[in-house]
Amino acid sequence: MGAAQASNRTDVVPLSYGSPASASFPYDALQQAASDAILTQGHAALQYSGADGPAVVRQWIAERSALRGIHVTPQEVLVTYGSGQAIDFACRAILEPGDHVWVEAPTFFGALNTFRTSEAVLASFPIDEQGLRVDLVEEALEHAVRENLPLPKLLYCIPNYHNPGGISLSVFRRKRLAELALAYDFFILEDDAYSELNFGAAYLPAIYSFAPQRTIYLGTFSKTIAPSIRLGWAIASQDTAVKLGSFFHGSRASAFTQQIIGNLLSSYSLETHIGQLISRYREQRDSMLKALDKHLQGAVEYAVPEGGFFVWLRFKEEVDTGELVKYASGHGVSFIEGQQFYLSPEDGKRYARLSFSYCEAEALELGIVRLAEAYQDYQAAQAAREV
Amino acid sequence: MGAAQASNRTDVVPLSYGSPASASFPYDALQQAASDAILTQGHAALQYSGADGPAVVRQWIAERSALRGIHVTPQEVLVTYGSGQAIDFACRAILEPGDHVWVEAPTFFGALNTFRTSEAVLASFPIDEQGLRVDLVEEALEHAVRENLPLPKLLYCIPNYHNPGGISLSVFRRKRLAELALAYDFFILEDDAYSELNFGAAYLPAIYSFAPQRTIYLGTFSKTIAPSIRLGWAIASQDTAVKLGSFFHGSRASAFTQQIIGNLLSSYSLETHIGQLISRYREQRDSMLKALDKHLQGAVEYAVPEGGFFVWLRFKEEVDTGELVKYASGHGVSFIEGQQFYLSPEDGKRYARLSFSYCEAEALELGIVRLAEAYQDYQAAQAAREV
Repeated sequence: MGAAQASNRTDVVPLSYGSPASASFPYDALQQAASDAILTQGHAALQYSGADGPAVVRQWIAERSALRGIHVTPQEVLVTYGSGQAIDFACRAILEPGDHVWVEAPTFFGALNTFRTSEAVLASFPIDEQGLRVDLVEEALEHAVRENLPLPKLLYCIPNYHNPGGISLSVFRRKRLAELALAYDFFILEDDAYSELNFGAAYLPAIYSFAPQRTIYLGTFSKTIAPSIRLGWAIASQDTAVKLGSFFHGSRASAFTQQIIGNLLSSYSLETHIGQLISRYREQRDSMLKALDKHLQGAVEYAVPEGGFFVWLRFKEEVDTGELVKYASGHGVSFIEGQQFYLSPEDGKRYARLSFSYCEAEALELGIVRLAEAYQDYQAAQAAREV
Repeated sequence: MGAAQASNRTDVVPLSYGSPASASFPYDALQQAASDAILTQGHAALQYSGADGPAVVRQWIAERSALRGIHVTPQEVLVTYGSGQAIDFACRAILEPGDHVWVEAPTFFGALNTFRTSEAVLASFPIDEQGLRVDLVEEALEHAVRENLPLPKLLYCIPNYHNPGGISLSVFRRKRLAELALAYDFFILEDDAYSELNFGAAYLPAIYSFAPQRTIYLGTFSKTIAPSIRLGWAIASQDTAVKLGSFFHGSRASAFTQQIIGNLLSSYSLETHIGQLISRYREQRDSMLKALDKHLQGAVEYAVPEGGFFVWLRFKEEVDTGELVKYASGHGVSFIEGQQFYLSPEDGKRYARLSFSYCEAEALELGIVRLAEAYQDYQAAQAAREV
């Protein structure tokens, strides 16, 4: 099947979806929590959200953050409409048009969009198997000072189970990056969306723990409960938190969804649920890696993700995944082409983000089989062109 | 009791709350709608909201808008996280720092905050019993052109049952304002939060209906269903809607709350519910006005609100409601002092916004009795000072 039929297939295996497994949502507990929020607490929970919402939510966040070396009171936690709102507030609190923002290459495109909306000047630094190349960041900072070039106002970093890179930032680099933020006076926006989905190792300390004054730490319930609940949080020093909070314009994150999550946290063990998610996603990762090793052996390489949702595939031969994705679509599988994650799309040509979170084992293997077929077709078409 | 005891009372009658009556929420229907959204539609409804959400919501909005002379397809409706998000998006789509925004005096302080965050230069124009003095806007536009002064980029207007003014903009003025927007090339941000709560008259045509290319129309379910559902909408020409939508950064209004409202609209007559709200709020308005006429006769004047949530009180004698509010608090009643609604707080000294939406008849009368007592105390204290 050629690339042209791409959009006609209805049975596409969506390895492009960076979404939790729908089967993993805590349906019954959520239904009970929502019913209580409406029928029992609705007088307040359905009203305007001028106040901070149920204390139990911020209490849970504060306690859980201690596992990552973040020691704060519930009052220092700002509950937001997903992390997206927190990234937006951080940009608006810190950036003026023309300010410099440094990001990882690759990085999460949603954040890139927000930085672009802020009219920031963007520069990127590569990652390797230990995460962001902090040594290159340091060199660039030194260079900027020497040459009197602008320093960054903000550095955006995904320290755990990187999207799309799958890897985590080493503790040594976390410390060094924090030291650099303090020395060169920029903010780190630490997007820690995936840290609960930790397949083995103990929690690593957050960058925040090394530079609380210079870090805005972001968490979310999107991966552990459900994305459409749209609740995330920011942790920042008091000054910064006040600035971030000013963008609520009086209307905080929905009292209704906060009450649902508050009820869920009170009546249900989110820790047990997270344990189940970890088992599920670890198995799904294993299924995907096994299929990759079987069907694309020799053709691709990747770092084994120790948590999160993503395998970041690098093709060994020269390939344009922006083209390959069309063949893949024709074969009934989707992924996200590497170019989406780079400031210079060219840099992503050999890469593909595969998500193992959304599909179950059988679909994952089918997806990889189709990807391998698509890659063969793509190579054959390239070879034919070269003759 | 003196002003000092203000914060100690626990039985304050909150005439300051611009909130719906909690007893009016459609609890059972919402509970059913939420349960279905989780248990029946949860696979999709709890996931990320990349798409537009259930068509039934935008369908309802489009059909309902026709009552106000707005004829659009569901595709031209942008569902947002409350109107607050829509106001924010409008500012970001239209304004650069230093741009001029014209508002009504008085106006909704939440919107003022958003304009200030946009670093807009603000100017205000008075309202009378027929709403915004469009003749003064016209004079100012002519003056600006003559003197080569900056024209506004945006004019913010609440046409129906004004917050806090209680009045509605006449159809003649709506037309004229639309003509001015077309002639002088500015946008009207038409915040129509209250138009469903219409105590008698037929719906008036929206300003949008006279200048669709130059108007961003805002609606909300906050007053008709529940505020914490956080769903509002913007209607704008396609070009403008695309610009507004770009600020979603890929994450639209929660699929979960959209599905809840979709289910509610499918299984429940919101029209009947709105009818019940109208009866309730009309009765509550009547109770408040009756109490005002009984206990504050001669001391205050107001225009009778034909819908919405608010009575906008003007004291006949000189008074500083910013001081009076402290006496009121000591007597166990709250209201919002006029100065909150003006660019120049001084202009609001004689005014008070009383909300009849949140409290039931008995509490409303008690609140007015207490306000009258507070006013007597205030006057006595003023007289004592003058001796």
